[in-house]
Amino acid sequence: MPPRRVIGIDAGGTKLLGAVVDEGLVVHHRTHRGWRGADRRETLDVMVEAAEELRSAAPDTAAVGFGIPSLVDRATGASAWSTHLPLEGVPFREVMSERLGLPVHVDNDSNVALIAEHRHGAARGAQHAALLALGTGIGGGLLLDGRIYRGAAGFGAELGHMVTDLDGPDCLGNCPGRGCLEALASGSAIGQVAQRAARAERDSALGKQLARGGEISGALVTDLAHQGDELARDVITQVGRRLGAGLVSIVNALNPEVIVIGGGAVAAGDLLLDPARAVVEERALPPARDSVRIEGAHFGPEAGMLGAALLAFDASQS
Amino acid sequence: MPPRRVIGIDAGGTKLLGAVVDEGLVVHHRTHRGWRGADRRETLDVMVEAAEELRSAAPDTAAVGFGIPSLVDRATGASAWSTHLPLEGVPFREVMSERLGLPVHVDNDSNVALIAEHRHGAARGAQHAALLALGTGIGGGLLLDGRIYRGAAGFGAELGHMVTDLDGPDCLGNCPGRGCLEALASGSAIGQVAQRAARAERDSALGKQLARGGEISGALVTDLAHQGDELARDVITQVGRRLGAGLVSIVNALNPEVIVIGGGAVAAGDLLLDPARAVVEERALPPARDSVRIEGAHFGPEAGMLGAALLAFDASQS
Repeated sequence: MPPRRVIGIDAGGTKLLGAVVDEGLVVHHRTHRGWRGADRRETLDVMVEAAEELRSAAPDTAAVGFGIPSLVDRATGASAWSTHLPLEGVPFREVMSERLGLPVHVDNDSNVALIAEHRHGAARGAQHAALLALGTGIGGGLLLDGRIYRGAAGFGAELGHMVTDLDGPDCLGNCPGRGCLEALASGSAIGQVAQRAARAERDSALGKQLARGGEISGALVTDLAHQGDELARDVITQVGRRLGAGLVSIVNALNPEVIVIGGGAVAAGDLLLDPARAVVEERALPPARDSVRIEGAHFGPEAGMLGAALLAFDASQS
Repeated sequence: MPPRRVIGIDAGGTKLLGAVVDEGLVVHHRTHRGWRGADRRETLDVMVEAAEELRSAAPDTAAVGFGIPSLVDRATGASAWSTHLPLEGVPFREVMSERLGLPVHVDNDSNVALIAEHRHGAARGAQHAALLALGTGIGGGLLLDGRIYRGAAGFGAELGHMVTDLDGPDCLGNCPGRGCLEALASGSAIGQVAQRAARAERDSALGKQLARGGEISGALVTDLAHQGDELARDVITQVGRRLGAGLVSIVNALNPEVIVIGGGAVAAGDLLLDPARAVVEERALPPARDSVRIEGAHFGPEAGMLGAALLAFDASQS
């Protein structure tokens, strides 16, 4: 009998990654979509289309797991709130299972990324772990006392919305906060800091990109930094130190064994993580700081997609 | 048979509260001590002296529970780190049980305060709660999924050391952090903000107190504010709003049902809590924010002392 397969879909703030995944966590088919600016209906249509594409490639798939950037009501599978997608109030599980004609399971995108990292990745063996997914925004996941922590109603672990700069800039998307970690250290924040740097230093590679009218994205900055560009490295270092301040809060408040940094921005690797580690070393309370590891996600930007598949396997076994 | 009785001692950053407490949580004898500037030996001597005074008043006491402002190693009862008392590295449980000749139980002061508030106070019935004790510093306690949360090695729940102002002032005591909530919204911070206000407004009640060479303490500011003094109320409001920013982090990261504010500074009551509630209402993520209560400690500044007694009862029953 061939191994059972499911579809795992990670729906981020600006793009979707999906795959057919078997029980050995082997990926059989992949797909991706972008949806900047899509409205609710378009967003849901894109998800359905991606799932159907994968299903036609692998008709034996038994279920679909979704990680979505929403506060997900555990009891109903509804999206109670989403900072970066127009999914507020969508009865997600109900809508998707009806449209796909398959069992659908849904959780917050960073919760499922942490499930993958905990079972098979950078948080393996830990009983206390946190995950930050740095992308359009910052998603968060918590594993406390060996279990995914969801809070009183499933709305917990929004670690990107810890207030890290009291009088700081407005947060992103439709978060009503100010100075949230997400506004300071997400992939979007890398782009914003780089924009300012490009304006200040017209002769730099970033400045020239700006003069050409090109986009100053987090991905561009990361590429330049890996190529050794000084200004791009400075930008990544600055954002890494801000990230570190957020990690200090997590270390002091939760005393985890490991904090996993995932999402697209982790492509910057130790250029981002080393400055963050340095701030934790300088500023967190000694006994908790001395025992925490800060690691890039083992599955990189695919942690959420694989975790969504694990969610579907778990739910269909129980 | 009379009810069993134990000694509960809450050792704060600048003072100690102790009592003989019975199983109905009735307090039979109270004592208190101050120890500003005491060294390690003197601090421990004061604790022993207080416990012996209580024991001589109630020779039937079966055990002693301590809440101390330390990161307490759960396995050994040692004080691994303390921001406000010279207790780093003290094998506390061992030293105290030897000196007192009684079973001794010890935990972080805010953990035990939360035990009292959860069993019999403002967090009764909750499965997810946080406690902040606003005094010399800010202690923290967490109840997650129905249990006191301690983290990987017992060093968690230091909610006063969440970074709330990235480039903010150095933290208090021997915390290596900057811009921790404790530096912004503790009882000490109320005194600091009031000092600045007193210098700026010489004709105010606070300004006159300063001119007389009197101390501008959090307690004084609170008294003046309750009497209707505008400037004192402004100070409390400002600190309450900073506190609110810290509460936003807790609401977003942990989705608790209730956050209990205890410690000496809670004497300011709603003058402090209403501005904090307003910031949560403005800035926290809607679904989590809409279901959280923010309450003063039912047991006020005695929550830690009563919780220390509950710790001793629990341990001597198991």
